[in-house]
Amino acid sequence: MRPQDIIRKKRDGASLSREEIAHFIRGLIRGEVADYQASALLMAIFLNGMTTEEQQSLTQEMLHSGEVLDFKDIEGPKVDKHSTGGVGDKTSLVIAPLVAATGAYVPMISGRGLGHTGGTLDKLEAIPGFRVRLTLTEFRAVLGRVGYAMMGQTEEIAPADRKLYALRDATSTVEAIPLIVASIMSKKLAAGLEGLVLDIKTGSGAFMETEERARELAHALVMTGNGCGVRTSALITDMNQPLGRAVGNALETRECLLILRGEADEGMRPVEDLSVELAAQMVLVAGLAASLDEAREIVRRALESGRALEKFRLNVEAQGGDTRVCDDPSRLFDLTLHEVKVESPHDGFINSIKTAEIGHAVAALGGGRARIEDTIDPGVGFIGHTRINDQIRKGDVLGLVYGRRPDEAETARQRIQQAYVVGDDPPSQAPTLIKEVINV
Amino acid sequence: MRPQDIIRKKRDGASLSREEIAHFIRGLIRGEVADYQASALLMAIFLNGMTTEEQQSLTQEMLHSGEVLDFKDIEGPKVDKHSTGGVGDKTSLVIAPLVAATGAYVPMISGRGLGHTGGTLDKLEAIPGFRVRLTLTEFRAVLGRVGYAMMGQTEEIAPADRKLYALRDATSTVEAIPLIVASIMSKKLAAGLEGLVLDIKTGSGAFMETEERARELAHALVMTGNGCGVRTSALITDMNQPLGRAVGNALETRECLLILRGEADEGMRPVEDLSVELAAQMVLVAGLAASLDEAREIVRRALESGRALEKFRLNVEAQGGDTRVCDDPSRLFDLTLHEVKVESPHDGFINSIKTAEIGHAVAALGGGRARIEDTIDPGVGFIGHTRINDQIRKGDVLGLVYGRRPDEAETARQRIQQAYVVGDDPPSQAPTLIKEVINV
Repeated sequence: MRPQDIIRKKRDGASLSREEIAHFIRGLIRGEVADYQASALLMAIFLNGMTTEEQQSLTQEMLHSGEVLDFKDIEGPKVDKHSTGGVGDKTSLVIAPLVAATGAYVPMISGRGLGHTGGTLDKLEAIPGFRVRLTLTEFRAVLGRVGYAMMGQTEEIAPADRKLYALRDATSTVEAIPLIVASIMSKKLAAGLEGLVLDIKTGSGAFMETEERARELAHALVMTGNGCGVRTSALITDMNQPLGRAVGNALETRECLLILRGEADEGMRPVEDLSVELAAQMVLVAGLAASLDEAREIVRRALESGRALEKFRLNVEAQGGDTRVCDDPSRLFDLTLHEVKVESPHDGFINSIKTAEIGHAVAALGGGRARIEDTIDPGVGFIGHTRINDQIRKGDVLGLVYGRRPDEAETARQRIQQAYVVGDDPPSQAPTLIKEVINV
Repeated sequence: MRPQDIIRKKRDGASLSREEIAHFIRGLIRGEVADYQASALLMAIFLNGMTTEEQQSLTQEMLHSGEVLDFKDIEGPKVDKHSTGGVGDKTSLVIAPLVAATGAYVPMISGRGLGHTGGTLDKLEAIPGFRVRLTLTEFRAVLGRVGYAMMGQTEEIAPADRKLYALRDATSTVEAIPLIVASIMSKKLAAGLEGLVLDIKTGSGAFMETEERARELAHALVMTGNGCGVRTSALITDMNQPLGRAVGNALETRECLLILRGEADEGMRPVEDLSVELAAQMVLVAGLAASLDEAREIVRRALESGRALEKFRLNVEAQGGDTRVCDDPSRLFDLTLHEVKVESPHDGFINSIKTAEIGHAVAALGGGRARIEDTIDPGVGFIGHTRINDQIRKGDVLGLVYGRRPDEAETARQRIQQAYVVGDDPPSQAPTLIKEVINV
């Protein structure tokens, strides 16, 4: 079986067998298949697609290209959540302690921000001292003791994914659904899960621009997860405006702490609502509730009782962070930053928001990355005061920019102001936060 | 302009501009575009195609990635022929001297055999001493003095093609028409031609299995050639049986000499007829005749007068070969080889021939290559005694195998015997040698 014969088969639109996919992926890891052969196959997959069986095989082979964690010694269901990413999408920091407080375990392997989207690891690192680089032994210990643990992908986990992802990025084959599915699922399944909940974002700040594409991806992920023996469900959720108020790492972590402390205001409510809903789905796939209503009830109690906040504190302590932020989230607020008001240029209604633009503006402040090797300024960001459908007058504050330098803050202000589309009439339809739940 | 943006554009089915193609090809040569990016683009081109304008741009960029020869100091039209390759396809050795004898110049840059097909350079090297590795200065001198010169592709000519061809071979993107066109045309146009004639083979021994694909390729080549300012025409010719009698390097060269000497028998007639027809097309695109009939007349006279044979002799002499083969072609016959008869297993009519199988059988005797670095045994081969439509009796000799060792000869005998499909009735249609002429 030569690599070019496997490429030819996919090129001609046929389905690859498990053996063929295994041969190719193993060959790639061993250096017997060249990068230029892998990228040709990636393009053929992009253009000709993959069946559910092929996606499962690809996921399994990428998963088994590296270490698969085994938490059998920790009694209790292990579940996780994955989001396709957005602007102000900070739910992981709320969900992990919330679900841990219900008795399930959350071994969460997260990523960093790139382009207009943020990353969980960057948000955690906004807490002074917080370590996301754990050894697998440390990760396991924190998970067992706290109920959840947070770390970045290691060299040992799904090396085939790392290799393929770099190639996809350089060859414009990132957006292919079978490749997205295998990339997400191989890393998530490497954490030895029983259940997985996916948050598929759609809208102006998401990678999946259309709901149709988001639904297609959600179905493919749920089919593949279940096919691989992991109870999987997916929510299609709105990313037509930043989720909650804060965009920027420390500001977002602060917002999460306010939610965990029961101090969320109306602007933070979407983060809380979505976190509760995703956590409830996780409790359900974990088998800790008989119905979604019961799961919601369990999650709400974990939040309102303060047990989730305690889990957060335990985790920060276990991972080397400064737990004082739990008692005083304002410690995360950098008072040396320049605050600039973004004002509405006219009367009207907020019709839509170019959400990715807000993400890019914050990234340009130093709060995000253009390339994965860039460093981050955790303090900078944006706090929104208004949402789609709000009626505003000229000069009303749309939000506040926090920049390291006045000129940078001013650039972000202009950019964000232009991201708000204000019309004379309210929008024909305000976005719904949760659009669909997919269980298959 | 990033390489991945150019890849994305082709991935999405759009047409690339001359600037985008230039940027990509130049970047590839300079090492700024990675091989894995090139192979992704190749697959996108394979699956999404290219317009005539894109094919012209790609051809021009590949051509200008290296040295473009300039024979302006040699007065007279420069023309060449290119064949897509087949089994027993030896016309170059007849055509080059034939056309040179009419007053045109033929700077022929040829290839080696690979797989089931032979290559002109290997056939020339069957002549003791013949040198195909000329410097450009030597090539120019031979061309000016003799009227034609033969050599292999150098490092200086179309380096982008060499790089892309290696990638295509490893990624199953060889058969894409736009890539075939750019590969052929960039090398041919590097020889500074005014006219070009293409011999597009179709049938069981050709790369283009169907006439439809052959026609598609021929049109694309002719459009691109003319678009690049070179008068180009194409013949679609039959490769459902070996061309002429001989398959194998020295045996084929001997057949060409017999034709040039006017000693061709009936079995060699197709080689002579096709050579004359292709040479006449070349004389026509060279502007040395007003009509095809006049061109045929000129070519026939060059052959029958012995002037073509004299050109052959001059070229062999100029390129270091032993000219005694011109007077005694039997010198090319290796008497130490084992001759084995291939006999018909039953009575009937030859309905079809698995021509590529005969090519592979001769390659397995040592007469061809599986990989480009393999060495060749020039003597071995096969001489056919029968053609499609011939009526035969059980035990009749279909042809003779010449092998270095008895066991190798026996293996080839069996394989070739099975390549002849003998039926009770004649085939519904005997193949026509020249199927179509395309001038656009």
